[in-house]
Amino acid sequence: MHKHFIDITQLTKVELQNLIKQAQHFITPTGVKKSNLLQGKTIANLFFEPSTRTRCSFEMAAKALGAEVLNLEISNSSAIKGETELDTALNLQAMGVDAFVVRHKENGMVQKIADALGENCVVINAGNGTRQHPSQAVLDMLTISQKFRDFSPLIIAIMGDCHHSRVGYSDIFALHLLGVKEIRLLTHEKLLPNDLDKLPVIASTDITTGLKNVDIILTLRLQKERHGEAFINEKNFLEQYGLTQERVALAKPDVLVMAPGPINRGVEIADIVADGAHSLILQQTKNGVPARMAIFAHCFQLG
Amino acid sequence: MHKHFIDITQLTKVELQNLIKQAQHFITPTGVKKSNLLQGKTIANLFFEPSTRTRCSFEMAAKALGAEVLNLEISNSSAIKGETELDTALNLQAMGVDAFVVRHKENGMVQKIADALGENCVVINAGNGTRQHPSQAVLDMLTISQKFRDFSPLIIAIMGDCHHSRVGYSDIFALHLLGVKEIRLLTHEKLLPNDLDKLPVIASTDITTGLKNVDIILTLRLQKERHGEAFINEKNFLEQYGLTQERVALAKPDVLVMAPGPINRGVEIADIVADGAHSLILQQTKNGVPARMAIFAHCFQLG
Amino acid sequence: MHKHFIDITQLTKVELQNLIKQAQHFITPTGVKKSNLLQGKTIANLFFEPSTRTRCSFEMAAKALGAEVLNLEISNSSAIKGETELDTALNLQAMGVDAFVVRHKENGMVQKIADALGENCVVINAGNGTRQHPSQAVLDMLTISQKFRDFSPLIIAIMGDCHHSRVGYSDIFALHLLGVKEIRLLTHEKLLPNDLDKLPVIASTDITTGLKNVDIILTLRLQKERHGEAFINEKNFLEQYGLTQERVALAKPDVLVMAPGPINRGVEIADIVADGAHSLILQQTKNGVPARMAIFAHCFQLG
Repeated sequence: MHKHFIDITQLTKVELQNLIKQAQHFITPTGVKKSNLLQGKTIANLFFEPSTRTRCSFEMAAKALGAEVLNLEISNSSAIKGETELDTALNLQAMGVDAFVVRHKENGMVQKIADALGENCVVINAGNGTRQHPSQAVLDMLTISQKFRDFSPLIIAIMGDCHHSRVGYSDIFALHLLGVKEIRLLTHEKLLPNDLDKLPVIASTDITTGLKNVDIILTLRLQKERHGEAFINEKNFLEQYGLTQERVALAKPDVLVMAPGPINRGVEIADIVADGAHSLILQQTKNGVPARMAIFAHCFQLG
Repeated sequence: MHKHFIDITQLTKVELQNLIKQAQHFITPTGVKKSNLLQGKTIANLFFEPSTRTRCSFEMAAKALGAEVLNLEISNSSAIKGETELDTALNLQAMGVDAFVVRHKENGMVQKIADALGENCVVINAGNGTRQHPSQAVLDMLTISQKFRDFSPLIIAIMGDCHHSRVGYSDIFALHLLGVKEIRLLTHEKLLPNDLDKLPVIASTDITTGLKNVDIILTLRLQKERHGEAFINEKNFLEQYGLTQERVALAKPDVLVMAPGPINRGVEIADIVADGAHSLILQQTKNGVPARMAIFAHCFQLG
Repeated sequence: MHKHFIDITQLTKVELQNLIKQAQHFITPTGVKKSNLLQGKTIANLFFEPSTRTRCSFEMAAKALGAEVLNLEISNSSAIKGETELDTALNLQAMGVDAFVVRHKENGMVQKIADALGENCVVINAGNGTRQHPSQAVLDMLTISQKFRDFSPLIIAIMGDCHHSRVGYSDIFALHLLGVKEIRLLTHEKLLPNDLDKLPVIASTDITTGLKNVDIILTLRLQKERHGEAFINEKNFLEQYGLTQERVALAKPDVLVMAPGPINRGVEIADIVADGAHSLILQQTKNGVPARMAIFAHCFQLG
């Protein structure tokens, strides 16, 4: 029996902690531990939205475990011919694909594909719609765990585009599951989530006050491609709501700064912050590979 | 000496039967037999038309035999710079590519490439123009052979877009080579082939009568992208000429339904038929990998 | 410590000669010597401009040395999301990429990426802007060295688009470094380089006279995609400035004809010349793989 990996809320606290431990276990001083755990398996990167970073991270994770990787970017291929996503996945499964790493813009589609493929197959969510990016949440929690042994006293501020961010949602639920003390969303009113009352967060547009006593600041990319509205003036955003060096100074002295890539330099985060001593941005990317190795091992029930 | 694999009509009956036997030999209870038959060889998927399914099927077949695979989708690459298809292939051959899996929309192009590359190289047709898709024919014959030991008493009905379908042509010649009793084309008058009198088929627009005593129904995708004309009303097509459950009931009770993917659900075939008990659609896809392994073995004169 | 490979002018004569020797050493009667020199390394082909030939050549070279290859064509991917080239490269490095093969249209970008990544990483220029294509220069010099043991008496004519050609520039500096007697640029006045006075060449629009006593003719592709101006009438170009059989006859009797692909047949070179007995065009392509293997070995300080 295999497991799918669709939404961070489907994990128990212990399962998430085990993923973090397993990911840490894959890390070596020079990179990641290569093995043949997935030898003979074929992993398909099935991306219905373009991606460089996440696709490569999954590809490197799969290859580090000895798997073969098929890359499929479906936007100008059989999609032209009118085949449904489910048929594409079912046919690849029939060919012998053992696991699917799927990105899709339509909420719920990765779950639908998993339901269609069933339990003989593994489906891993590589970013779905506006709510789910669970592998990013695992790598973010791994990154935090390397700095803090205990999540319970932590105060986390999340800035930037909390409305459109699947990373934001996934991180909120992961942080909550691991028992952080407080999650604060600090951004423009219109960039707050619609379902704020259902989230374990405190929201505020007063960034100055909100950053007090914060251990970790997570900035979310201003998703220009999802903004139909014109209320956000990108040029003023950094000054008004972005993470400047002055704002970093309002948090705890050793505050950590995280951001899921790609970042918009000078928009939601200043260059000097992104490249500064507080920044864990490249560490997050580095942790992506072992985190995804752990997700593969989890889904195939290995290790 | 290597062999090219361009057109189903270039095979003898014995060669086609051997391909089917060899393909069957590669099948295991859990997938396909992996080996190092092509170790050290580099296979280039040289696709001048986009494809997901066929490209992946060939890629998985090549890797199952231990080959390296280069994927080239030439539409926005050096084609921009004006290089001819022959030069692209000759240059890849000079780099050390051992076999080419080629798809091209222009009739005859794959043969031209094979002629240019010569006998030290293998060229396999992965779909060329409106007439040739020989690897699909091999996998379709393999699928039929798994259900019927003897092709000679079989009556086959082919429905849908017989005019534009390279799969249709390839299957007709393969079925005829294997000695089926009768091939019936059952579709809209304007979707019949132009060269009907040269084909070993009976054509009719009377689908109800035509489906009587049929052992296998093969539906061909309505190729919207090739229709300049507007005579086909896609919305009414299923009802008028498509494969509905009612029409399946007109054939033999244990009739088998086949369709080369991708299918247009609700156009040439009803969902309930595509996903029903008579359908071999996913079995066809599954058979694509061992069929293409057999084609590689045939071309490299292995096994 | 690793080395980058950015510009042919950064090499000493001995380094260039060693690259040629190393490349020759990788050549076998049936192709190239496969090894595990780069086993465990991941090479990213990071192409910000589309390419078939160069990308495949580097991919085959990397795989022949046992490396894993990641292919990234960045034009419709995270570039949409506004990430900078440097961030893309830094993040891939963080994931564990060991070497980058980079193509970019903006002059100086590959050097910038190398500066950002530092000495723990290898950056190889696969074509940058209008001046740099050093791996092409190595393979061209390798090709010449297989015909002439001594470069010093050689007279080289370069024809075609000398203005826009990064191959032209790279070859000029490589030929000069190896001590050829004379380099003649023979083309339309407006296709001569802007900085002619800084180049170790003689320029002339009198092609007939210029071809006398020439040992090697190198034709450069008319880069239609870079021509804003309309002064070049492509239809007349071959007759007026291209390499016809008549012009080949003006050079030494055993003159060699070279051209970096892709070529525009009938524009800068006649079919009969490209495919004729003097032509080394496919030999150049063939030499691309061992030349790039030698560049990898050089950068990783192996062999």
